[in-house]
Amino acid sequence: MADLFWPGDDRAGDHFTSESFLGAMVDVEADWLGRPLEVPDHLEWLANEAELGGNPVIALVELLREQDPRVHRGLTSQDVVDSALMRMAAAAVASLRHDLRSVVDRLVGLAERHRSTPMVARTLTQHAVPTTFGFRVAAWLTAVLDADDDVARLDFPEQLGGAAGTRAALTELGRPAPGGVPRWHTTRAPITRIGDALAGCTDACARIANDVLVMSRPEIGELAEGSGGGSSTMPHKANPTLSVLVRRAALTTPQLAATLHLAAAQQVDDRADGGWHAEWATLRDLVRRTLVAVSQTDDLVTGLVVRPDRMAATLAAAGADVLAEQRSMAAAAGHPPAPSYLGDAIEHVDAVVVRARESLSKESR
Amino acid sequence: MADLFWPGDDRAGDHFTSESFLGAMVDVEADWLGRPLEVPDHLEWLANEAELGGNPVIALVELLREQDPRVHRGLTSQDVVDSALMRMAAAAVASLRHDLRSVVDRLVGLAERHRSTPMVARTLTQHAVPTTFGFRVAAWLTAVLDADDDVARLDFPEQLGGAAGTRAALTELGRPAPGGVPRWHTTRAPITRIGDALAGCTDACARIANDVLVMSRPEIGELAEGSGGGSSTMPHKANPTLSVLVRRAALTTPQLAATLHLAAAQQVDDRADGGWHAEWATLRDLVRRTLVAVSQTDDLVTGLVVRPDRMAATLAAAGADVLAEQRSMAAAAGHPPAPSYLGDAIEHVDAVVVRARESLSKESR
Amino acid sequence: MADLFWPGDDRAGDHFTSESFLGAMVDVEADWLGRPLEVPDHLEWLANEAELGGNPVIALVELLREQDPRVHRGLTSQDVVDSALMRMAAAAVASLRHDLRSVVDRLVGLAERHRSTPMVARTLTQHAVPTTFGFRVAAWLTAVLDADDDVARLDFPEQLGGAAGTRAALTELGRPAPGGVPRWHTTRAPITRIGDALAGCTDACARIANDVLVMSRPEIGELAEGSGGGSSTMPHKANPTLSVLVRRAALTTPQLAATLHLAAAQQVDDRADGGWHAEWATLRDLVRRTLVAVSQTDDLVTGLVVRPDRMAATLAAAGADVLAEQRSMAAAAGHPPAPSYLGDAIEHVDAVVVRARESLSKESR
Amino acid sequence: MADLFWPGDDRAGDHFTSESFLGAMVDVEADWLGRPLEVPDHLEWLANEAELGGNPVIALVELLREQDPRVHRGLTSQDVVDSALMRMAAAAVASLRHDLRSVVDRLVGLAERHRSTPMVARTLTQHAVPTTFGFRVAAWLTAVLDADDDVARLDFPEQLGGAAGTRAALTELGRPAPGGVPRWHTTRAPITRIGDALAGCTDACARIANDVLVMSRPEIGELAEGSGGGSSTMPHKANPTLSVLVRRAALTTPQLAATLHLAAAQQVDDRADGGWHAEWATLRDLVRRTLVAVSQTDDLVTGLVVRPDRMAATLAAAGADVLAEQRSMAAAAGHPPAPSYLGDAIEHVDAVVVRARESLSKESR
Repeated sequence: MADLFWPGDDRAGDHFTSESFLGAMVDVEADWLGRPLEVPDHLEWLANEAELGGNPVIALVELLREQDPRVHRGLTSQDVVDSALMRMAAAAVASLRHDLRSVVDRLVGLAERHRSTPMVARTLTQHAVPTTFGFRVAAWLTAVLDADDDVARLDFPEQLGGAAGTRAALTELGRPAPGGVPRWHTTRAPITRIGDALAGCTDACARIANDVLVMSRPEIGELAEGSGGGSSTMPHKANPTLSVLVRRAALTTPQLAATLHLAAAQQVDDRADGGWHAEWATLRDLVRRTLVAVSQTDDLVTGLVVRPDRMAATLAAAGADVLAEQRSMAAAAGHPPAPSYLGDAIEHVDAVVVRARESLSKESR
Repeated sequence: MADLFWPGDDRAGDHFTSESFLGAMVDVEADWLGRPLEVPDHLEWLANEAELGGNPVIALVELLREQDPRVHRGLTSQDVVDSALMRMAAAAVASLRHDLRSVVDRLVGLAERHRSTPMVARTLTQHAVPTTFGFRVAAWLTAVLDADDDVARLDFPEQLGGAAGTRAALTELGRPAPGGVPRWHTTRAPITRIGDALAGCTDACARIANDVLVMSRPEIGELAEGSGGGSSTMPHKANPTLSVLVRRAALTTPQLAATLHLAAAQQVDDRADGGWHAEWATLRDLVRRTLVAVSQTDDLVTGLVVRPDRMAATLAAAGADVLAEQRSMAAAAGHPPAPSYLGDAIEHVDAVVVRARESLSKESR
Repeated sequence: MADLFWPGDDRAGDHFTSESFLGAMVDVEADWLGRPLEVPDHLEWLANEAELGGNPVIALVELLREQDPRVHRGLTSQDVVDSALMRMAAAAVASLRHDLRSVVDRLVGLAERHRSTPMVARTLTQHAVPTTFGFRVAAWLTAVLDADDDVARLDFPEQLGGAAGTRAALTELGRPAPGGVPRWHTTRAPITRIGDALAGCTDACARIANDVLVMSRPEIGELAEGSGGGSSTMPHKANPTLSVLVRRAALTTPQLAATLHLAAAQQVDDRADGGWHAEWATLRDLVRRTLVAVSQTDDLVTGLVVRPDRMAATLAAAGADVLAEQRSMAAAAGHPPAPSYLGDAIEHVDAVVVRARESLSKESR
Repeated sequence: MADLFWPGDDRAGDHFTSESFLGAMVDVEADWLGRPLEVPDHLEWLANEAELGGNPVIALVELLREQDPRVHRGLTSQDVVDSALMRMAAAAVASLRHDLRSVVDRLVGLAERHRSTPMVARTLTQHAVPTTFGFRVAAWLTAVLDADDDVARLDFPEQLGGAAGTRAALTELGRPAPGGVPRWHTTRAPITRIGDALAGCTDACARIANDVLVMSRPEIGELAEGSGGGSSTMPHKANPTLSVLVRRAALTTPQLAATLHLAAAQQVDDRADGGWHAEWATLRDLVRRTLVAVSQTDDLVTGLVVRPDRMAATLAAAGADVLAEQRSMAAAAGHPPAPSYLGDAIEHVDAVVVRARESLSKESR
């Protein structure tokens, strides 16, 4: 799984590797069979054979039947593939949420520490009014909490429908389906919801990375990645590599989520002729890239160097301009400008921190 | 708004037109001001001026201040644009859900009527095993209910942050913000969630349309659109026009939803330099196309002609092959094949109808 | 056409409006008929009727036959729609190339003026080595020239196939098709190539806008938009509005181009059941947004304020670090560092200017 | 590289694997050094280290300098990565064109064999007028030839700019760059053009697959995949697996091409902060999926079973309706209907075959 094309890919560990997929499919078959099955050591052969049937299950079942001829009885390929995907997704999302909580935890610390650290707010790249760095972190935190809320709502239904969803083979075998297992052979909301929620995670991570990239420009210098990356030819450089790689991910995941919707919209008959097959690798890439991005964001936030002196200097240099709005408001209100122009920024930081703590404590219960 | 490029566009009515946008922005300003304002009759001028400030609010405020100089005091452009978008979205989604409920209602009737109408299941385009048309309709219904669940969860927060989210001007004016209004200037989950839910709606509609397009092919003839569209040169043709137009929409909406995610992932500083601006027209197109597609699906389902005789004939012609699985299962189970091979298809139809009725009754309360 | 959702939209003028589409379709019918036809004043009615047939031609022909009953004889709807789209596209692309040439022309001036204006090169947001502003402009110019090369290669074939591409009606009528008119009812490269080339244009424009947005940040201040946009509440602000709006466009066009490919990949039979219909509005949006973005880029480049003093100051402040590479190269080569470290940057500027001039002179011939 | 998530992936062989990427980067360094270098056997380590620098070159150079300390002198990471990508792309495209030519060759045979095999044309899923199967194949052939034309136009420039494109290190080292090597560090048309052309290939393949999927439905039965894939539970099924897998690819590639455009539009400074990094894996997936899809299409077309009897039967069953247009044209022309209603379909087949032969002979020269 050493992927030179996606630096950081190893952070996603074994989630959604071909080996994990194989293992998950064997687990699904074993659970259905009611006895353990050994994972066959024929990944290469299975991958090649998968093309014949359009999916890896037919060849896998052939191998597994050497262990027990009753394997797969009553199931169809889609039951096995979809259930395996969902098991892998559930495991990956558990890991993802662990990392999201870590990001939340660190952002809480950062927000509290800097709730009243003054800096200049920027809108459309230009200096706007005073704000605090904690207020900015509160925005990051809101983005991550919103993303986590969507991830927390996901569920991972297994699939059990048999050849065409009717479970006819099960009935024929006198084996009723376990209660409460839905059927979603041709209605793919369980897949598209995962895709949408994961894209929401990389949106949130990129929202942080973008700020780090701007604020760690040498002319601004208000933030720095703790351990910047080097250059192959310029010894002095400390590149904001984590931020760069996080931004990279967020440029790719929305289109992957869109592919899942497009595939869902191609559902037809009782099993789609291509829409289903387009999901597997797309979901894999979406899951792994999101895992990597959130983990990188965690490191980014952990190592983040904050420079209140530079923030203060920028604000001072921005001068009277950033209080122009205040002067016009004070004039409108008919009183001299108040000593600070931070509105309820600090209260807002506190409120977001409360939301974050509630979210963390709900999870840890 | 006569749009020759998107036949059926008029079904979306006044939702998200430039006129509605203008009206909603004036409403936001009027509510904030605490007195009614007249909508200025200068749409063309405003549209042209909008480029200067990057959004239409600056020019609008200039016009509105002729009615009252206190207009917009304490607000920023983004407060007005975002709140207006959310008001429009709330109205559009209310209308959408009305149509979704109508689709659900009609599908319930169809599912019940045909819960045991026999037809052949098709997987990967080929005949699989017996099923019922009601079972197929239950899949359609599931798709629509899943989509509606996601739409039902949406909320439409107004925006109130002032120049950079800190509400400093409000404080200066001695005017506290109403409680519970969140700030999401640079965290765009409220927008991306709408986009994702709407894409889910067109996925569901396309899932129905795809089946109608296949099953109304003359060689199959098991379904027909009630009032097919004509041809400009072939007098005999009755084209499944509604299905075609629904499918069209679903080919475009996932990329629009992806654009909203990409825009969210470009958030930076205290107002984004392009990511925000990319949302407005994208959301407009997504909303209108979804409204059109759901309304067309409602008509499609209402007028749908079902031909149980053709379904029965196809199944008969498919012959013994579609019972091959049953024979092998019966052999495995050691008994002769049961007289029917429908599994729990009909129970499943009933269960989905129950879910639909619960959803309908929850809504009508 | 006043579009509040896409500030600057009016720059696209009449290209691809519903009125233009109607006019182009009437022109196609008139050319085929061999006599002028009046454009019927029933746009609203036509837009509504278009849904019935799935496209606007059937209703249009009904209207036009009041002028001459022989209208449309031998044609099919797709002949008329596709030919009209191509006529509109040809006109829009001519206008686009006019603006692209203007951008090229102005960038040539800028590159020449600043071929040796020193500034710091930045990679991954950090200071790298010395460069010149002209060298940066040469990159902008290369991007625009590359985009223009792709646009220049486009062609805009009309469509003439009759009901299913076989031109049977023409033969029956004894009216041979004009030579050299290709048939592309179900092979949509003429459409996808336009989409790809237009996305290439917004890529190039965004490449410029991104730099302006970075370099006009107040902490950098090396560039400024000549006439920045204002703020609705902060009187001091001069926002880089044109750059923001250009970036906006480039966040949306790639997905529109992707939709054209997806639609092409849905072609089936002798006319697609949705893929064709998804193209029209998508192409419209892509064309108009590209026209707007290129026109805005032209203004942006024209008004651009360049601040060589700030560039020099940044470079000086970057200090010895940006010469670290030079020192290690000089050590490796065994000689003291050369007085300048600009490599062939200036020669490169000159070479790109030569390419641009050749491109301009080829066009003006 | 056994990829269970993308059945058929092994058809793409070694193109764009991590091993090939490593090999290509070492080749680039070796060519620059002017002596061979051994490929280090540390892929896993390199992949992990790649994250630190944001790309794999820094760690690779560290390894290679054990072989020769002069390695990489004057280059920057992007020179090596981009040049390696282009070498891999050139090799992959050569292989792709070989397969495209094979598809063209087989389609020529099919078109000739069936130039006058009668069948019914279908538009919007419904029977339209008579056509020939050869005419349909001519559309497939046109799609593939159009795609190949775009692929043939691609070029694969190496990259040589040094730290920030200025080649300052080369000058310092007294080593002039080879003539004619362009610089495209921040202008990515060479990448987006590849993406667009590859998406065009899968569009063309899907256009064929869609027809096979429709026409091999059992109720139509005019085509069949030679060796259909099996089912894991239904012994009678012969699924059109190749067509399904080709369609799958075409649902995913347009969004990958869009990602390349989005990345290009994020170019800024003298090296982008994420846009560049998003390209590598995206290009890899696009290349490999296109290779697989074209190779599968080759097999699909080679094994395709054509059933002229079924085509004739469908046409006969369609009856007088498909001649309705002819009757009205004949009436308009004032003569009895001609005995055939095929227009210039057969001449068109011949013309497309001529185009194909010219294309094939141009290539083989």
